[in-house]
Amino acid sequence: MSDNIDGLIEAFRAGKRAALARAMSIVEDARPGYDRLLSELHSATGRARRIGITGPPGAGKSTLTTLLAGLYRAAGLRVGIVAVDPTSPFTGGALLGDRVRMEAIALDPGVFIRSMATRGSLGGLAGTTRELSDVLDAFGMDRVLIETVGVGQSELDIARTADQSVVVLVPESGDSIQTMKAGLMEIADLFVVNKSDRPGADRVKHDLEVMLGLRGGNALGEDPAHHGVDLRRIANPAKAARQAAAAASAERWTPPVIQAVGTTAIGLPELVTALDRHFAYLEQSGMLVRRRRARVRQRIVDVVEDRVRRRLWLDAPTNGWLDGQLVDVEEGRRSPFAVADALLAKSGALLTGASR
Amino acid sequence: MSDNIDGLIEAFRAGKRAALARAMSIVEDARPGYDRLLSELHSATGRARRIGITGPPGAGKSTLTTLLAGLYRAAGLRVGIVAVDPTSPFTGGALLGDRVRMEAIALDPGVFIRSMATRGSLGGLAGTTRELSDVLDAFGMDRVLIETVGVGQSELDIARTADQSVVVLVPESGDSIQTMKAGLMEIADLFVVNKSDRPGADRVKHDLEVMLGLRGGNALGEDPAHHGVDLRRIANPAKAARQAAAAASAERWTPPVIQAVGTTAIGLPELVTALDRHFAYLEQSGMLVRRRRARVRQRIVDVVEDRVRRRLWLDAPTNGWLDGQLVDVEEGRRSPFAVADALLAKSGALLTGASR
Repeated sequence: MSDNIDGLIEAFRAGKRAALARAMSIVEDARPGYDRLLSELHSATGRARRIGITGPPGAGKSTLTTLLAGLYRAAGLRVGIVAVDPTSPFTGGALLGDRVRMEAIALDPGVFIRSMATRGSLGGLAGTTRELSDVLDAFGMDRVLIETVGVGQSELDIARTADQSVVVLVPESGDSIQTMKAGLMEIADLFVVNKSDRPGADRVKHDLEVMLGLRGGNALGEDPAHHGVDLRRIANPAKAARQAAAAASAERWTPPVIQAVGTTAIGLPELVTALDRHFAYLEQSGMLVRRRRARVRQRIVDVVEDRVRRRLWLDAPTNGWLDGQLVDVEEGRRSPFAVADALLAKSGALLTGASR
Repeated sequence: MSDNIDGLIEAFRAGKRAALARAMSIVEDARPGYDRLLSELHSATGRARRIGITGPPGAGKSTLTTLLAGLYRAAGLRVGIVAVDPTSPFTGGALLGDRVRMEAIALDPGVFIRSMATRGSLGGLAGTTRELSDVLDAFGMDRVLIETVGVGQSELDIARTADQSVVVLVPESGDSIQTMKAGLMEIADLFVVNKSDRPGADRVKHDLEVMLGLRGGNALGEDPAHHGVDLRRIANPAKAARQAAAAASAERWTPPVIQAVGTTAIGLPELVTALDRHFAYLEQSGMLVRRRRARVRQRIVDVVEDRVRRRLWLDAPTNGWLDGQLVDVEEGRRSPFAVADALLAKSGALLTGASR
């Protein structure tokens, strides 16, 4: 297995496309050696711009992603695409015109597309999306486009993965903007109102701009979703301090609202320009460094927690011991807390990795 | 703080309603001492039947919950209600008729209602819902009704919390049954088609029954959501073995589809009867023991992981050390995996609790 990974890394570094495909599969499925693979590739990451493209199902995200990839290709850039959308036409079901465009893109050797269905309601995609982006980055892609459907967990995933987040809406979103998921609003660095040839496009743009104006007192580019450690019910004073410092030092970025018509590529050059402008802003304000640092920190936290889970719950003696405690807990003689504490007290060597 | 918890436990055990309210708040907010409180109350749990009531917004879950509580009260049973639904009328907004009924229920000393808004898209409610149910159980409630809106994470939460799960639909759900979230279908022990005086009720019932017939080869009462440890991308051979054994030994339970009209209480006595019949089935088939054992196991796993997170990420020296590594990782000199392993290697005493 170790030899396979070594050989794979060699072929990957030589720029073999088949090695990229295999590396993506190993990482996506967390097959044996995936962590060593990522670890070896890590030093080659950090060059790609990662652009998240999110929004409700049917907003035309895949079409925009395809067109954006085409424009970047025309500029001589290499493009990786990760589509995390069960309804994405990348996974089938595209209209004929879309499909022709997508097939053209998919056959371009300067483009690599990986489409994932979401994995049940538990998601668990944060890690995978981020890691697949790392692999594409390490392979030398200049842009990594991450298409996700904007529901539930995924807007947080994308904020943890992307340098820049584009939120795609359609005129039909008009009535729902007032009740739009706060998560989507918070992560948006740019808005695209797609299908703007339909009635209601101007109103959506107007409503968005009103809403952004109302929020003008905030440092919009610097939001909680881009920062720090997700500890759910655990307070994190360091994070709060970092956020405050970031907010104080950040210049303002007001997300532009771009009207587009994906089928005719209207608005696409404006989107490319706005993304460049936003990236320059991220660099100049120091926010890029802060976002990437927060992402690195979160990444390490996630790896630590994943390691802990694997070491504890894939360990047969620990599971056997735990199974032996269940009757006592069921019958009220011991509490789950007492058993948990006892389990941790006896698991030092396991948790630190010393027992392996 | 410790004295406060001791006094609270004493008042709780003496059946003081104010102590119940305070215990619920401490647990909901995870205030200091909440784990000791739960630990002390643990031996008194296990008597209540926990009934999950879930379904899309607007399906009339709160009305059904109120009526169900009323029927149980009429039978002399004590009832706790946990409503985890941002759109729940328990949190305001009920129609007048509903509100009168709910206020009557809320004023009944044999009923205790706790309404929680959901906490952002991250949820994190699994633990809290379960723990609030424990508190109500320990207080001596005979039935604990848990109302959750059936989206995303929450159907898994309810499967981890409830002995029995009722999925509530309305005639308007008809078109969406084919695309209904698999999660909702999988957790259902009983279906209620509410608002059955509206057009389409018979079709929804028919469609559900067809779908259940198609799944007739499965042991429907025994589903993955009710079992074992959620390890996301981590395989669990022990769990698979337990599931296979359970499936082989389980008799069949086909979820009944009950038509109801919440506003006139039509179908409610049938629901009570079906719940009793299902509970008897759970007991006789041995499935109740298995479900509760799986719940206890998951509970311990969750406490262990929560302890690990708190011990690591609320520890100032660990955070300081981690912050010191970030630049090396950003600049590619160390990988997140190497830093994670080093962090775990030095955290033995912290993780086992020996350092406190």
